[in-house]
Amino acid sequence: MSDGLMCATQAAQAAARVMARCDQLAEISETPGFLTRVYLSSEHLRANALVGEWMAAAGMTVWQDSVGNICGRYEGLKPGAPALLLGSHLDTVRNAGRFDGMLGVLTAIEIVQSLQAAGQRLPLAVEIIGFGDEEGTRFGITLLGSRGITGTWPDSWIAHPDDDGITVAQAMAAVGLDASAVRQAAREVKDIVAYLELHIEQGPCLEREELPLGVVTAINGAHRLNCRFVGEAGHAGTVPMTHRKDALAAAAEWMVFIEQITPQHSPQLVATVGSLQCSPGAVNVIPGEVALTLDVRGPEDQPLATLLSALLSKAEAIARRRGLIFSAEEYYHIPATRCDAGLQAALNRAVTAVQGRSLLLPSGAGHDAIAIAERWPVGMLFVRCDRGISHHPAESVMEKDVASAIQAYDRVVRDVATT
Amino acid sequence: MSDGLMCATQAAQAAARVMARCDQLAEISETPGFLTRVYLSSEHLRANALVGEWMAAAGMTVWQDSVGNICGRYEGLKPGAPALLLGSHLDTVRNAGRFDGMLGVLTAIEIVQSLQAAGQRLPLAVEIIGFGDEEGTRFGITLLGSRGITGTWPDSWIAHPDDDGITVAQAMAAVGLDASAVRQAAREVKDIVAYLELHIEQGPCLEREELPLGVVTAINGAHRLNCRFVGEAGHAGTVPMTHRKDALAAAAEWMVFIEQITPQHSPQLVATVGSLQCSPGAVNVIPGEVALTLDVRGPEDQPLATLLSALLSKAEAIARRRGLIFSAEEYYHIPATRCDAGLQAALNRAVTAVQGRSLLLPSGAGHDAIAIAERWPVGMLFVRCDRGISHHPAESVMEKDVASAIQAYDRVVRDVATT
Repeated sequence: MSDGLMCATQAAQAAARVMARCDQLAEISETPGFLTRVYLSSEHLRANALVGEWMAAAGMTVWQDSVGNICGRYEGLKPGAPALLLGSHLDTVRNAGRFDGMLGVLTAIEIVQSLQAAGQRLPLAVEIIGFGDEEGTRFGITLLGSRGITGTWPDSWIAHPDDDGITVAQAMAAVGLDASAVRQAAREVKDIVAYLELHIEQGPCLEREELPLGVVTAINGAHRLNCRFVGEAGHAGTVPMTHRKDALAAAAEWMVFIEQITPQHSPQLVATVGSLQCSPGAVNVIPGEVALTLDVRGPEDQPLATLLSALLSKAEAIARRRGLIFSAEEYYHIPATRCDAGLQAALNRAVTAVQGRSLLLPSGAGHDAIAIAERWPVGMLFVRCDRGISHHPAESVMEKDVASAIQAYDRVVRDVATT
Repeated sequence: MSDGLMCATQAAQAAARVMARCDQLAEISETPGFLTRVYLSSEHLRANALVGEWMAAAGMTVWQDSVGNICGRYEGLKPGAPALLLGSHLDTVRNAGRFDGMLGVLTAIEIVQSLQAAGQRLPLAVEIIGFGDEEGTRFGITLLGSRGITGTWPDSWIAHPDDDGITVAQAMAAVGLDASAVRQAAREVKDIVAYLELHIEQGPCLEREELPLGVVTAINGAHRLNCRFVGEAGHAGTVPMTHRKDALAAAAEWMVFIEQITPQHSPQLVATVGSLQCSPGAVNVIPGEVALTLDVRGPEDQPLATLLSALLSKAEAIARRRGLIFSAEEYYHIPATRCDAGLQAALNRAVTAVQGRSLLLPSGAGHDAIAIAERWPVGMLFVRCDRGISHHPAESVMEKDVASAIQAYDRVVRDVATT
C-alpha cells in the first residue's frame, strides 16, 4: 500500500491549497467579514458550486443530492465498486471560524486529486460529501445533511420553521430543491463501506500533548438537564446563617461536588454548569430559588449514566439536608457514538507513521459521523487547533499541521480502500 | 417607678387600638390594596395629619417639622424639660407590610396616652416623632427624616431627583415645605436625652426563641461589594475537567467557603451572595466570567472587617490556584451602630419584667436609630413578627405580642424619663 503515497513536499503543496480554499470559502457568507453560512441559503448553494468545481477538477463525478449535499465520486478499479465515503460539513454557526467542517471536505479533495495525478484507482471508489447542514444554525434541528444520506429525516422536518417562519420545505423550494424528494438522498447500505471524517479537534488536548493529529475513539454522548433548587428567600441582614434555606448556597455545594467527582469517575467524562439564574437576585436578599443547567458528556453511555445518577443523587441529598427542594428535567440526550475499531486501527497506523506516535481521544463535540454511524462504520481524524478555540473567528490551524493531516489521511484512505 | 404602670387589661386595649390604627394608616397608599407611601407624597402628608390627630388626642403639642416629620411633645414636670424621644418611620417600601415603622410610632402614642389618662407628668418631657423617610423608596437616599433631626443632610440632597426627575426640593415645594429651611428641623443636642425605638424584628430569632420581645445590642454594620471571577470560556464537551478555567466553579468554591466560615467567625455575622450572573451563560459553554455580589453584616465593625478580609483573601487564593482573576469593589459601607448600654439595661429590665426573660440580639436591618445615634444615646425594642417576613404584604404581628410590647415600652419610658 505504500505505492504512490504523498511525499512531504506534495502534502505541503496540498496544505497550502487547502488553506487558500478555506479562505475562499470563508468569503461566501451572508455577512461580509463575519462568516455565517446556513442551510438552504444562497451562500449554501454558492459554496456547493465552488466545492463541486474543485471536486470535478480532482477527477470526480459531481452531483448535488436531494437535501442539498454536494457529492463527488472517484471511481474504483471496477466501475460501480462500493465506496469509501469521506466528508464533513460546509455550513457554519454564526460568526464562525473557517475550518470547522470545511477542512474535512477540502483535505479529502486533495487525497482524490493526488490519486488522479498519479493515475491511480483503488479497489474501492472514493466518494466525498460536503454536508449542507450539521450545525443546525438555521432551523435548530441538526445533522440534516448526514441524516439525508441515512434516510432518517423524520416526516416533521420539512415543516420545521426557521426564525422567520420559513419552513424547510419552503426554503428547499426557494433554492430549487423538492421537499417531496428528500428520501432520494438516502444511500443504499451496500454502496458504502465506511465513512471517514477529518475535523479540527475544537478542544485543547492535542495542543497540550504537542501533537498535530489524534484518533477519535468515540463521539461523546450527552445529557442536558434543567435543574432547580427551591429554598426560601429572606433578608440578608436578619436571618442568621444557620437558619437559612439559601438556594444559591445549596447550588454552590453541588457545583463543587460536580467538579470534584466527575474526573474521579473518569478523566474522559465532563460535566458543566453553564448557566445559572438566582432569584430574586438582589444584593440584600438571600436567594430563594436557583435555576441552573447541567451538561454531562462522555464516550461511553453506561459510565456517563452512572455519573449523572451520582450527581443527581447528591443534589437530592444536599437539598434534603438543607430543607430545600431539588428538581431536574432532562431535555436532551444523545447516546455516545463509538468509532469503528478497524478504522481506529487504520487511523492509528497512519498517524503513527506521520508523527511518530498516536493519541486516542474522544470527541467532545458532535459531528456528522453521529448520524452516519447508524448505517456504516465511522472513523475520525482530529487536527490540532489553536487553544481549542472553535465556533469563533479566532479558530485557527497551522498549515504544517494540515500537511501532516493530509499525509495521514492519504495513508488511511489507501489503506482502507485497498483492504 | 412602678406607680401608674399599665396593667395587662390596659395594654390589651392599647394593642387593639394600635392594630386598628395600623389598618387605618395602611389605607393611606398611592395604590389601593398595595401599601406604598413614599416621602413627600400626598399620602405622606395625609398620614402625618392622621398621626398628628392621634398625638393631639393623647395630650401632645403637635407640629410638622421642616423636613416633613410629624412631631408631638408631652411636657415634663417642668416646662421646657429635656425630652426622651420615641419614634420610628411612617414611610414604606413598595407593596409593604403595615407594621414596619408604623408600629413604633403608634405604640409610643399609647404610652403618652396612658400618662395623660393618669394625669401623670415625668421629669423628662416625652416626644414622639414619625419620620417622613427611612426606607429611601422615592429618592434612593435613606434616613431623610432622622438626618433632618440631626441636621446632617448633605447639601446635595435637595437637588437629588426621584425616578421622574423631580428633585427633593421640588417635591418639598409641592407639599408646602421649603427646601431652604431644612436645617430648621435639626434639634439641639441638649434638648434630647435619649432615643428609643420599638420596631418589628424583621427576622426569625424571636420566633425561634418563642419570645415576643427582644433588646437590640447594635444595628449591624454592612459592607456590599461587586465581585468578579474571570476565567476562560470554553466548549463544554471538548475541554477536560482538569484543563478548565471555569469561573462558576471558582465562585462555587468561594460560596461554600463563605457559608462555612462566616458562622465560625461569630454566630452574629452574616454573609450573603444574593445575585450572580455568569457569562456567556449557555448550557454548552464553560462560564468564562461570573459577577456576584457579597453582602456582609455584623454588630461590631472590627470582627466584620476581619471576616470580610478573610473572605476576600480566600477568593484571591481560589482564583490564583485556578489561574483565574478575582476582583472586588466595595460600593457601600455603613459602620455598626451600638445601642447605649444604659438604655439596653433599662430595656432588659422592662422586657424581663413582662416576659420572664430577655433576649439580646443585633438588628440585621437598618433603622432611624442609626442616624440618631450620631447625636444621642439610642435603644431599640424588637417585637416578634411572623416568620421574620417584612417588606411584604404578609408582614404580621400578633396583637398579644403588641400588648406585651406596650407594657415593656411603658415600663422603660417611665424608667428612663424618671431617672
